[in-house]
Amino acid sequence: MFDIEKLFSAEPRHVARAITKIENGSADAAEIMKAVFPKTGNALIIGITGSPGAGKSSLVDRLALHYKNAGDRIGIIAVDPSSPFSGGAILGDRIRMATLGLDKNVFIRSMATRGNLGGLSRTTVDAVAILDAAGFDKIIVETVGVGQDEVEIVKTADVSVVVLVPGMGDDIQAIKAGIMEIGDVFVINKSDREGVLRTEKELEALLSLAHRPDFWNPPIVKTVATENKGIEDLAKAIESYDSFQKSGENIERRKSIARWRLLEILREKLLADALSKNGAYEKLDRLALEIAEKRNNPYSAVEEILKS
Amino acid sequence: MFDIEKLFSAEPRHVARAITKIENGSADAAEIMKAVFPKTGNALIIGITGSPGAGKSSLVDRLALHYKNAGDRIGIIAVDPSSPFSGGAILGDRIRMATLGLDKNVFIRSMATRGNLGGLSRTTVDAVAILDAAGFDKIIVETVGVGQDEVEIVKTADVSVVVLVPGMGDDIQAIKAGIMEIGDVFVINKSDREGVLRTEKELEALLSLAHRPDFWNPPIVKTVATENKGIEDLAKAIESYDSFQKSGENIERRKSIARWRLLEILREKLLADALSKNGAYEKLDRLALEIAEKRNNPYSAVEEILKS
Repeated sequence: MFDIEKLFSAEPRHVARAITKIENGSADAAEIMKAVFPKTGNALIIGITGSPGAGKSSLVDRLALHYKNAGDRIGIIAVDPSSPFSGGAILGDRIRMATLGLDKNVFIRSMATRGNLGGLSRTTVDAVAILDAAGFDKIIVETVGVGQDEVEIVKTADVSVVVLVPGMGDDIQAIKAGIMEIGDVFVINKSDREGVLRTEKELEALLSLAHRPDFWNPPIVKTVATENKGIEDLAKAIESYDSFQKSGENIERRKSIARWRLLEILREKLLADALSKNGAYEKLDRLALEIAEKRNNPYSAVEEILKS
Repeated sequence: MFDIEKLFSAEPRHVARAITKIENGSADAAEIMKAVFPKTGNALIIGITGSPGAGKSSLVDRLALHYKNAGDRIGIIAVDPSSPFSGGAILGDRIRMATLGLDKNVFIRSMATRGNLGGLSRTTVDAVAILDAAGFDKIIVETVGVGQDEVEIVKTADVSVVVLVPGMGDDIQAIKAGIMEIGDVFVINKSDREGVLRTEKELEALLSLAHRPDFWNPPIVKTVATENKGIEDLAKAIESYDSFQKSGENIERRKSIARWRLLEILREKLLADALSKNGAYEKLDRLALEIAEKRNNPYSAVEEILKS
């Protein structure tokens, strides 16, 4: 039996165990989350996204260190779609622990894969809720890439930070990335590189085209994470957006996040129930083979699964 | 009633209509896909992925033009998670049509959003099947970003191309992107920029660490898409992997793709059925509000939905 009270004492080992239970879809996962939920709402959740190579991890580490030095307890969830073969996530965690120091006040977890049942987004959001309930003050969710799942994860944060680097804004791709509209704060990292002014001008131009329903004007912060430059400015920009949005009525926003979470959990639960029937996996396997051999098609196959 | 025979005549208007039906989840969508499926398997499906700013669109356009000049009919599906507000997708399509010329032999479609029911991956894979059945010779699926959905889409292609640019391989992020293991062919685009040799060396080092189960050694092609340089080399590299994999037994690979598709369709269908009940959306809305106001939690709310 998992001891939920120990989780709330923020013992890293118990926090890690709770997250593993969520990841694995353990039998008591839903019970844990029901106990966790009423204790959430105290942490500041910061979503950080951007392309690979933008230096997000260094930036996150420096920001975490900044908060730690200010006396905060920090949780970091790194969403990483690498294959489980590469060990990239584990390697990454080890390197980061060396930078941040591993103590009770810093918790780092990479979430690398999603299972058959989907749910990387749901698992990540649940892990954030666990850290929140366990009393971490700042929770940073770092996503690599700008995929649909990643965008949805970042949307659930209180403050979303989009990281760019000089020279990436030089074609239409930057507009297409779909991340322009989710950024509450923009960072130009590696701002000691050439082209920083041009990137800043282009970003300003893009932002002036976007019309935010809340009329917030996203600040642009220049950083050199590896040299610890601009980190304080970033923390200030994050805080200013947090104060801004707290001053407004955000029940609609919370409702739309709740709706998305409901659908994520429902989707997963329905599939798990359908596959929990006796022989369901064998049937899935047989049908997949039939489709691969062109003796069947996915749509008829799904109808067959649903009939049984 | 949708005329499926007209689809097979590859009339762009009918192809576009069929894809729209799939996107909207029309009542006859499953029937269309059942008719489409037996006609698939003739096209070469090329997945192209990489970070925003890598110049993927230009590269895809040049490659498409190369195939077109060789007498092929080309379909391009651009997966783009931009918000529907930005109009990025439509703008992009217009610019591309100017480059490629719009005729019966080139079909371009951006797939920008997924609905409540999920399914951007499934919709994309279905759109590819439609183009395949409609007789397009080469189908290029372009994904922005390296998210989980995007990785899964690219995995369903016959040949996966990963696009990098000089200077992006300079930290651990590149390993973490999770795209290293899905690339059958690697492109260093913008290879007239400085740092190209370093990126090539780092990429070679990374690839030498990866152990592919099929022992394929992914070639690295250097291109400058905007100047049409290296496009022929890229086409050759794609062809060489296609010949290589055709020579092997790939029923297991096709089976695992079929299994993934089955689960995607099943997940979507189960949710659609659950939400098709009278008052389901009202209930969802009420529960989302309760959660937003902290009077309920997502897990108990899902149990309530499932009970009814």
